[in-house]
Amino acid sequence: MEKTGKYEFTIDAYLTDFRGKATLPMIGGFMLQVATKHAEERGFGYSTMTSLQRAWVLSRMAIEIFEYPKNDTEMVIKTWVASVNKLFTERYFAFEDENGKVIGYAKSLWASIDLKTRKPTNVLETGNLSDYVAEVGNPIKGLTKIPALKENYEHASDFIVKYSDVDINKHLNSMKYIEHIVDVFDIDMFREKEIRRIEINYISEGHYGTKLDILKQEEADGTFILEMRAGDINVCSARIIWK
Amino acid sequence: MEKTGKYEFTIDAYLTDFRGKATLPMIGGFMLQVATKHAEERGFGYSTMTSLQRAWVLSRMAIEIFEYPKNDTEMVIKTWVASVNKLFTERYFAFEDENGKVIGYAKSLWASIDLKTRKPTNVLETGNLSDYVAEVGNPIKGLTKIPALKENYEHASDFIVKYSDVDINKHLNSMKYIEHIVDVFDIDMFREKEIRRIEINYISEGHYGTKLDILKQEEADGTFILEMRAGDINVCSARIIWK
Repeated sequence: MEKTGKYEFTIDAYLTDFRGKATLPMIGGFMLQVATKHAEERGFGYSTMTSLQRAWVLSRMAIEIFEYPKNDTEMVIKTWVASVNKLFTERYFAFEDENGKVIGYAKSLWASIDLKTRKPTNVLETGNLSDYVAEVGNPIKGLTKIPALKENYEHASDFIVKYSDVDINKHLNSMKYIEHIVDVFDIDMFREKEIRRIEINYISEGHYGTKLDILKQEEADGTFILEMRAGDINVCSARIIWK
Repeated sequence: MEKTGKYEFTIDAYLTDFRGKATLPMIGGFMLQVATKHAEERGFGYSTMTSLQRAWVLSRMAIEIFEYPKNDTEMVIKTWVASVNKLFTERYFAFEDENGKVIGYAKSLWASIDLKTRKPTNVLETGNLSDYVAEVGNPIKGLTKIPALKENYEHASDFIVKYSDVDINKHLNSMKYIEHIVDVFDIDMFREKEIRRIEINYISEGHYGTKLDILKQEEADGTFILEMRAGDINVCSARIIWK
C-alpha cells in the first residue's frame, strides 16, 4: 500500500460558514477522519490499537490554510507519517483544491497510551508504522511551544462540556477544541480576515460536565494566544494567526 | 436517474459518542448532506435554487432510530421525494446498517423562499421536482404539531449563536438545533436509554449573536417537549422520545 493516503471531500453548502467557505473545525474534522482511515488501512489504526489496549492521543497540531475552499467544490487531503520514535509519531497533511492547487498544510504529533494505566506506550511497537514513514515536503513552520499567558489576558468565553462535545473516552473531542476556540472571535473578523494558522497543544483532558474557560491575549497584531482552563488546570493552549 | 438516492457513510470512531455509537446530530448531518446531494444530482439542488434567487428551508423533521450504528461500521441512507405541492415538498429517508437491516426512518418537510423577500415561492416551479416523487414505504408516524409548553417548564440551558453555529445565511444551522437540544440531557440518560424519536418544528431563524434559551417539560414518561426561544420568540419546538 502507498505510504501517502489521498482522500477527497465535498465542501457541502450546508456545512460552510456565512461566507460560503469551509471552516477550520470542518477541515480539522476531515483531518481526523483521514488520519483514522490512513492508519486503519495500513494496520496501525483504531482496531489494532484497541486490540493492544491502546489509543492514539493527539498531542500537538498546526494547520495553515492559504485559501479556504468554497461550497460545492472538492477538496483533496493527502496524509502521511513523517517520523516515528519511541514517544511520538508525526503525521503531516497537504490540502489541495479541486484543480490540484495546494491550499494549505498541517503537522500533527501523536503519542500512544495504555487504555488502563493512561501511561505512554512505545510507539515503535505499533504494527508496521515505521515502514510507512514518507519523506514528503511540508514547508510550514513546525510545532512550537506556545507561551503561557501574561497577566493582562481577557476572559473570552466559557462553556460546559456536554454530550455532543465528548468522544468515545468521554473527553472533549479534539475537533471540538478548535470549534470552541474559533468561536471566541467575533463574526466580523471573518469578514475582513481569515485564520491563516492555528497551533494547538493538547495538555490535559476536558472531561464531561466540566466548565472550561477560554482566556485570550493578543500577542502581536492579529496573533492571539488562547488558553482553555478547567479551574487552574490548563487543558490546552493555542495560537491563532489572522491574515 | 433513479428516484431514490442511496448513500453510504462510515461511522468514524472519532465522531461517535462515549458509547462508540453514532449520535443524532451526526445522523442529522448525514441527512442534510444526502438531501443536498440527491437534489443537486436531479436538478433541484442548491445551484438551481441559487440561480432562481431561492433557497430551500427546512420546516419540520421527524427522525426515528431503532438501532444506532456502531463505530467503524457502514451506514446506508436512502432518500426520496415523497410528495410535492405548491407550498411544500416532503423528503423521506430510510437508514440501514451495513448488513441491509433497516435501523430507522425519517420524514422532512421543506418550503422554498425567495432570497430577497424571504417569502415562500411555488415549490412546483423548482426544476423537475414533481417527476421524482417516489412511492416508497415509510412506516413511522408523520410530522405532527408540537404543543406549546405549559407553565411548569424548566429552563434547561442557554447559549449564544456563534460563528460555528451559523450557516451561509448567518442563521443557526439546522443540524446545530439538534445538537443543542440533545445536549440538554444528562449523559447518564444515554447510558440507560436511547433517543428513539425526535420531532422538530423550525419556526423562526436563530440569528448570529442571539442568546437562545432552551426550555424543557416532560410531557409523558420519557417524552419531552422542548422550546428554543430568543426572548419571547419561539425559534423552534421539539419533542424527544426516549426508549
